[in-house]
Amino acid sequence: MIKILVDCFGGDHCPEAPVQGALAALEKNPELHLLLTGDEALLQKELAGKTYDSGRLEIVHAPEVIGCDEKPTDVVRLKRNSSMMKAIILLRDREDIAGMVSVGSTGALVTGALVRLGRIPGIIRPAFCPILPTMDGGLVGICDSGANLTVTPAHLRQFAIMASLYMSQVYDVPKPRVALLNVGKEAEKGDGIRQETYKLLQETDCVDFVGNMESRDLLSGRYHVVVADGFSGNVLVKTTEGTALELLKKIKKDIYSRTLYKVGALLMKKMFQEEKAFMNYQNYGGSVLLGTSKVVVKGHGSSNAKAVEKCIEQAYKMETSGLSRQIEAAIAKYEHYEE
Amino acid sequence: MIKILVDCFGGDHCPEAPVQGALAALEKNPELHLLLTGDEALLQKELAGKTYDSGRLEIVHAPEVIGCDEKPTDVVRLKRNSSMMKAIILLRDREDIAGMVSVGSTGALVTGALVRLGRIPGIIRPAFCPILPTMDGGLVGICDSGANLTVTPAHLRQFAIMASLYMSQVYDVPKPRVALLNVGKEAEKGDGIRQETYKLLQETDCVDFVGNMESRDLLSGRYHVVVADGFSGNVLVKTTEGTALELLKKIKKDIYSRTLYKVGALLMKKMFQEEKAFMNYQNYGGSVLLGTSKVVVKGHGSSNAKAVEKCIEQAYKMETSGLSRQIEAAIAKYEHYEE
Repeated sequence: MIKILVDCFGGDHCPEAPVQGALAALEKNPELHLLLTGDEALLQKELAGKTYDSGRLEIVHAPEVIGCDEKPTDVVRLKRNSSMMKAIILLRDREDIAGMVSVGSTGALVTGALVRLGRIPGIIRPAFCPILPTMDGGLVGICDSGANLTVTPAHLRQFAIMASLYMSQVYDVPKPRVALLNVGKEAEKGDGIRQETYKLLQETDCVDFVGNMESRDLLSGRYHVVVADGFSGNVLVKTTEGTALELLKKIKKDIYSRTLYKVGALLMKKMFQEEKAFMNYQNYGGSVLLGTSKVVVKGHGSSNAKAVEKCIEQAYKMETSGLSRQIEAAIAKYEHYEE
Repeated sequence: MIKILVDCFGGDHCPEAPVQGALAALEKNPELHLLLTGDEALLQKELAGKTYDSGRLEIVHAPEVIGCDEKPTDVVRLKRNSSMMKAIILLRDREDIAGMVSVGSTGALVTGALVRLGRIPGIIRPAFCPILPTMDGGLVGICDSGANLTVTPAHLRQFAIMASLYMSQVYDVPKPRVALLNVGKEAEKGDGIRQETYKLLQETDCVDFVGNMESRDLLSGRYHVVVADGFSGNVLVKTTEGTALELLKKIKKDIYSRTLYKVGALLMKKMFQEEKAFMNYQNYGGSVLLGTSKVVVKGHGSSNAKAVEKCIEQAYKMETSGLSRQIEAAIAKYEHYEE
């Protein structure tokens, strides 16, 4: 039995999307046991009249609400009875719970998990790893993309090892191609951190390091993992999302400018829907924290029930694949130091 | 009379694009005097049979060729007779020459200009500033985007002042809205450098600082200048270009997958051409170095004659607008320090 917490009071469609996603995951997977955190009365109301195996579903009452403008550090400190913080604390305290899923504030979740949860032995800094679809139908993970704004080469090497194992264990990529985000492809490019990391990654046998990546090649399909400091990794991911959305929005607007285009677009309706679905990141699962002692999956704030269900399955697979133990074993082969 | 150097042996279409662009600019602007650098025999051959005012066109023989794989530092040191380095050295040595245009290697041009040219008095570090089109038909300049991989808040403030003046003087934006690239919008976001820069920019009267920008909002039209360290600025620009190109490529490929889509696309042919032109960065002029004592404009490697002509006009406008003097005057009001 794998026990996973679902934070039901975050995101744009709460609690319906988290609750319905939880029930769908529960039905599909008889080995799954879910704990829903949030306002008990509201959760009971959402569950009323639905069919599910009540022996595998618990409600954990957590009535406090996190406001949109609250600082992550304040949330972690002051909102211990919010659905998210309650989940993080339970995850820390109960050995029988494997992981958690949330579609709430990324800042609060990452801060809370880093402060409250332990790390996998040997890991200096856990890192945040979202995935994006590539143009050849594959996926690429970007690690780190926001948990660590400043990094050392030793951190970056650990990000490479963790994300490479993540892509192979959870997304079944046999030998993930790992690249270092840089301002050019040549080995000598970038600042001292990039140059030293390049050398470190060349010496890291458990990672298929293929060199530097220029950010314009992110979606090319040539890479499965991109290693970055949290600042530039964050820029990389959000710029990709933003550009794709803005461009599709512009095309839509332009279509409405002429009747001829509207007719053409009608013929291509299915294609445009597919492009939109392709660039809709919630179709690919959530972002994960790598390196924490327990599994943490963050879904997009706009996640629907299907997207939450995917996040739960992702957490389940992270646990059952033994990812943490593999990361621990891989990391142990290399020197590391605490700061 | 404004004298500008044109490096004729860089980019994908040399020497025809630079030479034809030069002749077009020359014809349009009677106050312009151009100096073309490159292999004299090849330039003469390209000019043969063309009509132009030979009193305003000079050829500067520079026969050395820069290879694709040469390190920028080697080019600067060893290729003094290449069309690009010859131009940089002439620009440094001859007071009567105002600026230069090149579509060759960005790395070599930026390195060469930083090493060989002086700076505007008060400027600690010149910065590289490309521009991108925004979805509302405007433009946004990103400064720095590669010349300085590590920066201080004092550097970033200077980038803000320079780029703001550049957008107002050269692109006629009356009061450019300036943002700081960060991982979130709130004032306290980011590392120490970002937090301190935020405060500095709030105190900088000559800049209309509107706060932090998340990278997904780059193309929204809400900002005219984005201030960044050269590493993340580079990621920002190249990710935007890369995502737009990959997405248009995917749409094109998908169109060819079904006859129905092909028919639809035929009706929308003009629109797709416009989208492609919209995202074709050479239609908006080149990237510039801000803070060097003389004007340096870098056009895209794939520039055609029209794009080179635009770069020459841009250099001309940078000079005639008195941008350097305005930057010097604005910078003088604030403390600065040399490193």
